[in-house]
Amino acid sequence: MHASEAATSNPTAQRRERGGRQARREQRSHGQDGPGRPYIVRNIPTYDVMSEENLRRIEQTADRILAEIGIEFRDDPIALDHWRRAGARIDGELVRFEPGMLREILSTAPSEFVQHARNPAKSVVIGGRNVVFSPAYGSPFVMDLDRGRRYGTIEDFRNFVKLAQASPWLHHSGGTICEPVDVPVNKRHLDMVYAHIRYSDRPFMGSVTAESRAEDSIEMARLVFGRDFVDRNCVILGNVNVNSPLVWDATMTTALRAYARANQAAVVVPFILGGAMGPVTNAGAIAQSLAETMAGCALTQLERPGAPVIFGNFLSSMSLRSGSPTFGTPEPAIGSMIVGQLARRLNLPLRCSGNFTTSKLPDAQAMNEGTMSMLAAVHCGANFILHSAGFLDGLLSMSYEKFVMDADFCGALHTYLDGVTVDDNQLALDAFREVGPGSHFFGCAHTMANYEHAFWDSGIADNEPFEKWEAAGSEDAATHANRKWKAMLAEYEAPPLDEGVDEALKDFIERKKAAADDAWY
Amino acid sequence: MHASEAATSNPTAQRRERGGRQARREQRSHGQDGPGRPYIVRNIPTYDVMSEENLRRIEQTADRILAEIGIEFRDDPIALDHWRRAGARIDGELVRFEPGMLREILSTAPSEFVQHARNPAKSVVIGGRNVVFSPAYGSPFVMDLDRGRRYGTIEDFRNFVKLAQASPWLHHSGGTICEPVDVPVNKRHLDMVYAHIRYSDRPFMGSVTAESRAEDSIEMARLVFGRDFVDRNCVILGNVNVNSPLVWDATMTTALRAYARANQAAVVVPFILGGAMGPVTNAGAIAQSLAETMAGCALTQLERPGAPVIFGNFLSSMSLRSGSPTFGTPEPAIGSMIVGQLARRLNLPLRCSGNFTTSKLPDAQAMNEGTMSMLAAVHCGANFILHSAGFLDGLLSMSYEKFVMDADFCGALHTYLDGVTVDDNQLALDAFREVGPGSHFFGCAHTMANYEHAFWDSGIADNEPFEKWEAAGSEDAATHANRKWKAMLAEYEAPPLDEGVDEALKDFIERKKAAADDAWY
Repeated sequence: MHASEAATSNPTAQRRERGGRQARREQRSHGQDGPGRPYIVRNIPTYDVMSEENLRRIEQTADRILAEIGIEFRDDPIALDHWRRAGARIDGELVRFEPGMLREILSTAPSEFVQHARNPAKSVVIGGRNVVFSPAYGSPFVMDLDRGRRYGTIEDFRNFVKLAQASPWLHHSGGTICEPVDVPVNKRHLDMVYAHIRYSDRPFMGSVTAESRAEDSIEMARLVFGRDFVDRNCVILGNVNVNSPLVWDATMTTALRAYARANQAAVVVPFILGGAMGPVTNAGAIAQSLAETMAGCALTQLERPGAPVIFGNFLSSMSLRSGSPTFGTPEPAIGSMIVGQLARRLNLPLRCSGNFTTSKLPDAQAMNEGTMSMLAAVHCGANFILHSAGFLDGLLSMSYEKFVMDADFCGALHTYLDGVTVDDNQLALDAFREVGPGSHFFGCAHTMANYEHAFWDSGIADNEPFEKWEAAGSEDAATHANRKWKAMLAEYEAPPLDEGVDEALKDFIERKKAAADDAWY
Repeated sequence: MHASEAATSNPTAQRRERGGRQARREQRSHGQDGPGRPYIVRNIPTYDVMSEENLRRIEQTADRILAEIGIEFRDDPIALDHWRRAGARIDGELVRFEPGMLREILSTAPSEFVQHARNPAKSVVIGGRNVVFSPAYGSPFVMDLDRGRRYGTIEDFRNFVKLAQASPWLHHSGGTICEPVDVPVNKRHLDMVYAHIRYSDRPFMGSVTAESRAEDSIEMARLVFGRDFVDRNCVILGNVNVNSPLVWDATMTTALRAYARANQAAVVVPFILGGAMGPVTNAGAIAQSLAETMAGCALTQLERPGAPVIFGNFLSSMSLRSGSPTFGTPEPAIGSMIVGQLARRLNLPLRCSGNFTTSKLPDAQAMNEGTMSMLAAVHCGANFILHSAGFLDGLLSMSYEKFVMDADFCGALHTYLDGVTVDDNQLALDAFREVGPGSHFFGCAHTMANYEHAFWDSGIADNEPFEKWEAAGSEDAATHANRKWKAMLAEYEAPPLDEGVDEALKDFIERKKAAADDAWY
């Protein structure tokens, strides 16, 4: 594909031309057979739960953490040099920031940007009122009902890329959907990025586990999109984690700088498990998250002013009986809403985490915790929702069954975020006139004119009467999901890929692999 | 108990005396072993998703439905007489209302009232920022993992009353928790009301299936609370349904008037399955719901000005493939938020429905749909959340396992609705000073001082590592819940009941039963 195609494929621009309300109706989600959308433009406001006064107190606490305690930037002299030149106070590797300094640096970061897909119709806009659903990221294990839990392989990885591509309700191919542990660590990124490009035509994420791997990932994107295009447009994301509390290590800062240098978007994410990597109190953990994220986002702007960057967060609670992390609990859910307010005050696109649980099965616990967590992510105004589908087992396992359940819930959220349209047709006064008291609306003209697109139609939920459900085998949702992912894989068709691009990618991978010994850790 | 005890037991008044923030912290939910609270005073705002302009268009549509189409009040000449004297236009049984008329009548209804429990410490305040969780209502079937689905009995009914009483996270004993089909229909209400009084000391609901049964229910409450006290205070609720679209039948209006006449609170609820009892479009169904509820609530004020009344709603979508109702879908979830805004504009306490699903098992579907629905209920500002625990099978079955799962989620919502406290301790700046970059917060002074009450601790969720969970038998949430409800019933202890009151109730029931032949329909 060419730069010009991608540039004109901005779905937001297309949507604006057609008019918001009409376009939303055209794109209304019709359920399991729906065509999907490249991303969601939300039509309901964010859920702002905290007062201006309390938001300011959290910001002031973040400013004091940054000014009085500081953040260590370990083993990355270039990062330290950036900070020195920006006027931070440096003491060894500890960097302290005057209040206001990071906000000033962050003013060059875009509030919204396009991440281009190799299929221009699937490019996404990240920021503003837009919502992008991306699969879960980073688990060493995979699970399904047939084989239980096992280490992930490159075949599993490809399967999940295919399932994401096949779902109309995800918008992004994600990154390390699972760890392909059958591929050496230092070659894994090549096979993962290739799988995203080959088996999906959606936007995707690259490696961050070493600066060279980040650069390889970006180089592969250049083979697809062209060098000049990549220098001017975002085509790949890299998800970098803070080493909380208050440490950025060189693995992450060099990867972060590699993405920024190439004008690609780093996603900056502190992972704070309250009571371990942060305080056990929510307000303090949020202030810490704000401080750490601001520092990381600002570093991208020192590397390349104007580079796209995403303000991320990942709050979690823990079981105070066992010390285990907990997910889908009320504290991080309410915390996400506040982080959303803080990110909007910085005018940065927001990443939140979606569908989390500590359950080891795709069961009631999994979907109770996951739904709580996912709804918090959409309510808080997150623009890029990583971990939208698949996680079980407290970040450790990707589940095939949960993946398709979660993707189906992502579909429901398309309808939810459309809100309620108010116009003469939707208000239906004529239908009341036609039907009158005591009758029913089944066959009335208004129902006939509107029923096809009226309600979300889940591809997982069983809405049949008990007797019919029982006669069909009394299947639970997990068993249904098991059948569904197998059918999706069986019916999957790879999107077309230019043969020359494919050859160039394969050649690149072959050369890179040949130049390296296997490394398994 | 005496009226004076109940009057001084208002937990809101107690809370105000102790100061909001401190009281909230004292009452912070500590998870599975927590003491619970009589009800929740929410500390996060409602989620208002619709603009003023669109809310007004919905109100105008409701006004036009009421003025141009009207509502039939069937077979209740007293109701028609009330409307005639209030100035409505009557045409046979069809009643039409000038815009503004019902709002004027509703101005006498209280925005908030106490429903007294026989244990004064468990009285609830309904309205304002208060949230009361009440069990599910009305299913003919019950289910558990051991015995599957079967008709409910009075033993099941008592079991659910006991489980609600034993849960720290429910606030209300509910009403027809399940239909005890082994008791004749015309005697059932006596045994149900007695079970609520005998096995629970929480507030409860009475019968509405006939005017005489409503009066019997209220009479039994008088035996507990005293005739004068009941005339001055709300001690029992009655849940009355509109016969949508746009019909109120005599069974419901005579029951509604019986509650109002006795100064007890009717809960007024249209059940609108879009495309069947209302239009297939959400805005129209909401306008209809508003019209029907306003008419029912206003009728209570004509029967007795100042009587407490609750503005209810129950929106549902349907499967357009099978025609079956669907629950926990996005349309009613977003619709609830709008109904909440409309109820607040009327200054009436709001009832919404909680934890709904069409799933036939306590599985992933059940908790995905239930959580979506329950969160909508708390976000929309509902004050009385009926169906907070137990439903499966599209309103048809109470599940023992789902009951305890849902009650546990109600616990999580206590923490959620507390929001995030912002003060020096919660902001934890001293903890950051103590720990600094790169260390951990496990044993620091701030963690030690705060960890005990820091995080919600679920009594259902399994947060253990995979290996430990597997070694313990690889139990799913439903199996865990199965063990839990059995343990709760085994450990249940009945709250004390004055022997004189108990005798008076038994005597009343005996006389009523003796005077009636068995009726099974």
